[in-house]
Amino acid sequence: MNPPDLTRGDFTLPGEAGHEALTLRLARQWGADTIRDSDGTQLSPAIEASGYAIYSTLCLPRSVQPWAREHRDQLQQNFLMSQPVVADRAVTTITLLAGFYTEQFAVNFQDRPRRWWQVFDRTTGREVPKTRWSVNPRRGAVTIRGTVPGHRYTVNFLAFRIWEEISMYNHLTNHWGDREHLAAVDPMQPAVQQVLLAFLERWLREHPATRVVRFTSMFYNFSWFWGADHARLRDLYSDWGDYAMTVSPRALRGFERKYGYRLNSEDFVNGGLYNSTHNAPSRRYRDYMDYIHGFVIEFGRRCIDLVHRHGKLAYVFYDDHWIGVEPSSPRFREFGFDGLIKCVFNAFEVRLCAHARGVRTHELRLHPYLFPTGLKGEPTFKAGGNPTLDAKNFWIDARRGLVRAPIDRIGLGGYLSLVEPFPDFQDYIAGLAREFRLLKSFHAGGRPWSAPGKVGVLTAWGDLRAWTCSGHFTRGVVLYDVLEALAGLALDVVFLSFDDLAARGVPRDVKVVINAGRAGSAWSGGHYWDDPQVETILTRWVRRGGGLIGIGEPSARPRPGEHFRLARVLGVDRDTGDRVANGKYRYPSPSGRVFATADHFITADVTAALDLGADVDGIYLVDGETEVLAEREQSPRLTVRESGRGRSVYLSGFRFTSENTRLLHRAVRWAARQERAWAAWTTSNVRTEATWFPRSGKLVVINNAAEPETTAIMLGDGGVVPVELAAHGLAVLDLPAG
Amino acid sequence: MNPPDLTRGDFTLPGEAGHEALTLRLARQWGADTIRDSDGTQLSPAIEASGYAIYSTLCLPRSVQPWAREHRDQLQQNFLMSQPVVADRAVTTITLLAGFYTEQFAVNFQDRPRRWWQVFDRTTGREVPKTRWSVNPRRGAVTIRGTVPGHRYTVNFLAFRIWEEISMYNHLTNHWGDREHLAAVDPMQPAVQQVLLAFLERWLREHPATRVVRFTSMFYNFSWFWGADHARLRDLYSDWGDYAMTVSPRALRGFERKYGYRLNSEDFVNGGLYNSTHNAPSRRYRDYMDYIHGFVIEFGRRCIDLVHRHGKLAYVFYDDHWIGVEPSSPRFREFGFDGLIKCVFNAFEVRLCAHARGVRTHELRLHPYLFPTGLKGEPTFKAGGNPTLDAKNFWIDARRGLVRAPIDRIGLGGYLSLVEPFPDFQDYIAGLAREFRLLKSFHAGGRPWSAPGKVGVLTAWGDLRAWTCSGHFTRGVVLYDVLEALAGLALDVVFLSFDDLAARGVPRDVKVVINAGRAGSAWSGGHYWDDPQVETILTRWVRRGGGLIGIGEPSARPRPGEHFRLARVLGVDRDTGDRVANGKYRYPSPSGRVFATADHFITADVTAALDLGADVDGIYLVDGETEVLAEREQSPRLTVRESGRGRSVYLSGFRFTSENTRLLHRAVRWAARQERAWAAWTTSNVRTEATWFPRSGKLVVINNAAEPETTAIMLGDGGVVPVELAAHGLAVLDLPAG
Repeated sequence: MNPPDLTRGDFTLPGEAGHEALTLRLARQWGADTIRDSDGTQLSPAIEASGYAIYSTLCLPRSVQPWAREHRDQLQQNFLMSQPVVADRAVTTITLLAGFYTEQFAVNFQDRPRRWWQVFDRTTGREVPKTRWSVNPRRGAVTIRGTVPGHRYTVNFLAFRIWEEISMYNHLTNHWGDREHLAAVDPMQPAVQQVLLAFLERWLREHPATRVVRFTSMFYNFSWFWGADHARLRDLYSDWGDYAMTVSPRALRGFERKYGYRLNSEDFVNGGLYNSTHNAPSRRYRDYMDYIHGFVIEFGRRCIDLVHRHGKLAYVFYDDHWIGVEPSSPRFREFGFDGLIKCVFNAFEVRLCAHARGVRTHELRLHPYLFPTGLKGEPTFKAGGNPTLDAKNFWIDARRGLVRAPIDRIGLGGYLSLVEPFPDFQDYIAGLAREFRLLKSFHAGGRPWSAPGKVGVLTAWGDLRAWTCSGHFTRGVVLYDVLEALAGLALDVVFLSFDDLAARGVPRDVKVVINAGRAGSAWSGGHYWDDPQVETILTRWVRRGGGLIGIGEPSARPRPGEHFRLARVLGVDRDTGDRVANGKYRYPSPSGRVFATADHFITADVTAALDLGADVDGIYLVDGETEVLAEREQSPRLTVRESGRGRSVYLSGFRFTSENTRLLHRAVRWAARQERAWAAWTTSNVRTEATWFPRSGKLVVINNAAEPETTAIMLGDGGVVPVELAAHGLAVLDLPAG
Repeated sequence: MNPPDLTRGDFTLPGEAGHEALTLRLARQWGADTIRDSDGTQLSPAIEASGYAIYSTLCLPRSVQPWAREHRDQLQQNFLMSQPVVADRAVTTITLLAGFYTEQFAVNFQDRPRRWWQVFDRTTGREVPKTRWSVNPRRGAVTIRGTVPGHRYTVNFLAFRIWEEISMYNHLTNHWGDREHLAAVDPMQPAVQQVLLAFLERWLREHPATRVVRFTSMFYNFSWFWGADHARLRDLYSDWGDYAMTVSPRALRGFERKYGYRLNSEDFVNGGLYNSTHNAPSRRYRDYMDYIHGFVIEFGRRCIDLVHRHGKLAYVFYDDHWIGVEPSSPRFREFGFDGLIKCVFNAFEVRLCAHARGVRTHELRLHPYLFPTGLKGEPTFKAGGNPTLDAKNFWIDARRGLVRAPIDRIGLGGYLSLVEPFPDFQDYIAGLAREFRLLKSFHAGGRPWSAPGKVGVLTAWGDLRAWTCSGHFTRGVVLYDVLEALAGLALDVVFLSFDDLAARGVPRDVKVVINAGRAGSAWSGGHYWDDPQVETILTRWVRRGGGLIGIGEPSARPRPGEHFRLARVLGVDRDTGDRVANGKYRYPSPSGRVFATADHFITADVTAALDLGADVDGIYLVDGETEVLAEREQSPRLTVRESGRGRSVYLSGFRFTSENTRLLHRAVRWAARQERAWAAWTTSNVRTEATWFPRSGKLVVINNAAEPETTAIMLGDGGVVPVELAAHGLAVLDLPAG
């Protein structure tokens, strides 16, 4: 194997017209092979002619202004639920857009409201017959007759979106004043398809220098409904994975033809909850997703074919208008994309990008973006900012994923001119790019070592939402923290859905199953536990030797007397308040011991009181066979149990920290009965992690902390190697390949 | 009106044979008019002949030993659910009493198990057909065929109780060794009725000195199932109000004849939850309660008639075997009892006793009992104890109820000889008795002043469980704390059930409705909110001027997008985790102000951060109309809202403290739009409370603290009277009667 050239390649630089010299200097310094434009920047002919490959961003649905605004019936639409109104008399009028941002929404009165809309008496939970209400387009209202005073009423109605959300957000955030409001057209409309394909054809002809068309992304944005009162409630609803903004009468008719049954507005509105990725999805909604995915592939492929016919590559951005793209879907390859670009803050997003099959190139857009201020308004590339430190901290978060999974390219975005006053940042990025190329070269030599067997993360979504919950890392959804921990561990992780499990059982190579989340969530599973097969398969599997880790409210699906369906396997259940009269097993309190944690293989590296975030209370033991390793206020927080030949671990919550990542790692190995093989390739210091590339004989040790750390690596042969690491540092040790 | 004699009368003294001189001396000192025996003590002929009225305790169901143990088929029984067993193969055998205390239970194999028992596959939730299981009396087991490996199975079976629970508890607690195990006979059996009536007839003849027969209580104890492992899980299930221990095939057949439908074992077992008073009861179970209440009245009246025919009075103890007695029921008067005795720790228990209609005499058994140790094993009448201080502290808790509601008598229980070394205790009780008689005399002169209108506490039980949740004050059920606060306030309190409300609306004189408790509880209401009438009536009532106070999870009955049915009235709802994607209204944080509580009439006496106990999180505002007075971690804890002409208050929890009692008092007056009339008869110091007896012109001021307090009373005419109170003290001011 030739030694890799670590100084150049696989790097996408954001160019900026008017800053040609800087652009070309940094392209050389950072070893870029590609120059891109960004939202708000252009490339000049000089840059385009400089010999670098050129990326051009393109967002098709908002590309055809003013046609879009002149054809309002061709805009994208969605169902909204009006604010509930309490009736005072027998006739009640509801102003449909009350509380909504009317620059975003306009009621769709033209598509037969009586067919598509629904009015609900939310007090009884029943639909109001369509003969009892009428629309008043002039007032933007619905009038309901025969209302019962004291009952609550809502209207589910269709609204066009007259301002595309990303345009709206950037416009309002950056005070763009009277700059044009871009609207997004709906490619499900035949007229729109014609307009878009014609536009794309022309655009491709007009961009001869472009090597890669970077779509942002396909057609439908993630869901984002704005409120009228931006100070008090701007985001009425926002979900990175909800298909709400794809709906139209045309889509619904097409669905009915294809699936043989009719969806109604409440399938989307769901009492105002809509279909957040975080909640266990209905089967009807999943059919709809499948339908839209099919459409986005079908029309998307026509666009991509056009790109290819012009001799260019097509990459897709894994954010913004990504709905229906579904890079984890087995059908994703049907698009024919050449690359996938993911903007990443952390490790599980790196894994998310790497996980997509069906593209040749997996590229990361790193943080910080080259903007004056960061995401929370903190200074970045301006006085008071420390962009180099920001870059280091983002890098050590993402790097945990990069050592575990191969990524092909990295890059930056934003205004390149902003980095000019920060020479240390320029130097750091050059080093970072070299570190990336080094890791890429190790992956090219063969997969890193993982513990034998696989860890299966069981959710309602399964592999379709592998390595993510819904968008970037948000505190409060425990699976984010779990995934972030797993993303950097020497474990092979697969994602299982309940349907996978019911159909095929636990895959043979899976040693440990993790189920983590609150009751009713897509992550814990909610109604998917209604299929008794799921409990049966997991119960038998554990009793025959499988390992189960439950976190928060695993297998929660309440029935009288039980909250967790796997309570007998986990050895714990949760009292949500209806067990006042039922006794609870007393257990030896672990609180007499150091840090209130009992001695056990799993807790061997615990050096402080457990911090499991906002964890679950009311946990009780189902019998005397469960061992409590940690508790709080008489509620067990960490328990272990043998069940037949298998093992289970329960954690009342999880927060991503170095300490807890180690705890989870040990829990997985214990549940898999691999605690004797634990030592190999682990570190003595939990703030450091080691990755062994056996084919190339490289041992990569990373420091996940912003301070220098000392650690020791336990080698596969029982030896121990001490390593000193700089803050944010990385060390590579050459060992005999094995 | 003659000045009352405060030195004697209305006091029941526990006598003790062998301590005749002490008995008679204390009877004089405490002004007793009655001497009683206690569990473990006897009265001697000398005491019985001393001229005092004599109370004798009698527990009928355990009075007929050894007949009871010789007729096991006549013992009381109940349904139990076996511990869940996970099947490993197609035939599964379940040992019925595994985990149960076999000194308490013996399986009833003789009453046609196939008719009465049920076997459940708890994984599917379905009953296993009766043809697929068989009983094995020799092994005490049920064998199920066709079991699915990995499924959980349970058996609901009938068990005789071979050791009566109070006897068992006293026996084991006091290490009575080989003393007889008393068993309780079931008076629903005809043979038992004969035996009991004969016993009672003989007993009455043999106790000529007895003036009052104090029944302990009628026939069926509250539910108390013991586990095999007394160290780790003694109380498998204990509920002061569950009718579980009344069940028998005879009772079930009688029920079916009377109500026209058949109950099954699962109606009682309920997945192992049984029918705790704390959980919203099913309508079937409420029918059963009604049926047993009728039976207990019917056979109870025969016993009481017998007592009366012997020229004696019949009192009933409102504890132990009180099931089916139901002193708050409108049918309670049908028993013909002469008195009701309630053992009390605190104010709501005083109100509970006073609330019973249909008896002439309401008597309290005060604490401390004359035992060497208290309830938690702390020393009382022995070295290290301070029984006088204990008595004072119990007294100030109970006294809050006594100033608000008339009670006829008080008394003590236990071993009188224990008080001999404590002359200060002897003196204190004499003073306490005088204070009681003084308060009684004020009540005799007319009702104390209350704020205009009534407060209605809305629960699934309504008036049947007025002034209690289920037995003595237990932390963790918020309504206990609320009731304890209300029990001492100048408010008229009534108890409403959802059925009352649906049938008759909010009573005309009710100004404020309180709904308090966790989701699914009998207190919050659980499935009773399924009747849309409830929401409708309350919504309309508030909009027309009513006041609503919601505490914890009021009106909780989750549906997609809503948790509280009255969210639109309260102005808040609760996010239990499914609203990750739904936005929340921002509100002006009250945290900039003193103690993080906004200035408002309700919070005017708040002087420290709110302590609402284990309160509810995830509260959010439904719109911009709700005002947040206190919050924690972005979850509102105290909010107010105008709704039409009415008002609502939300509290995320409630803990009984002087400060919170004042907060609740103010919340009630604010919700009733009575804040301008607030001042009259309130105190400046929240540790003190005032009660105004307008007919007699007496103003009673109590100090609820164990320290001296200074306070000022706002009079009805706008004047202010300063008052100094000793620790635990009481002051009476004479004012012009009004």
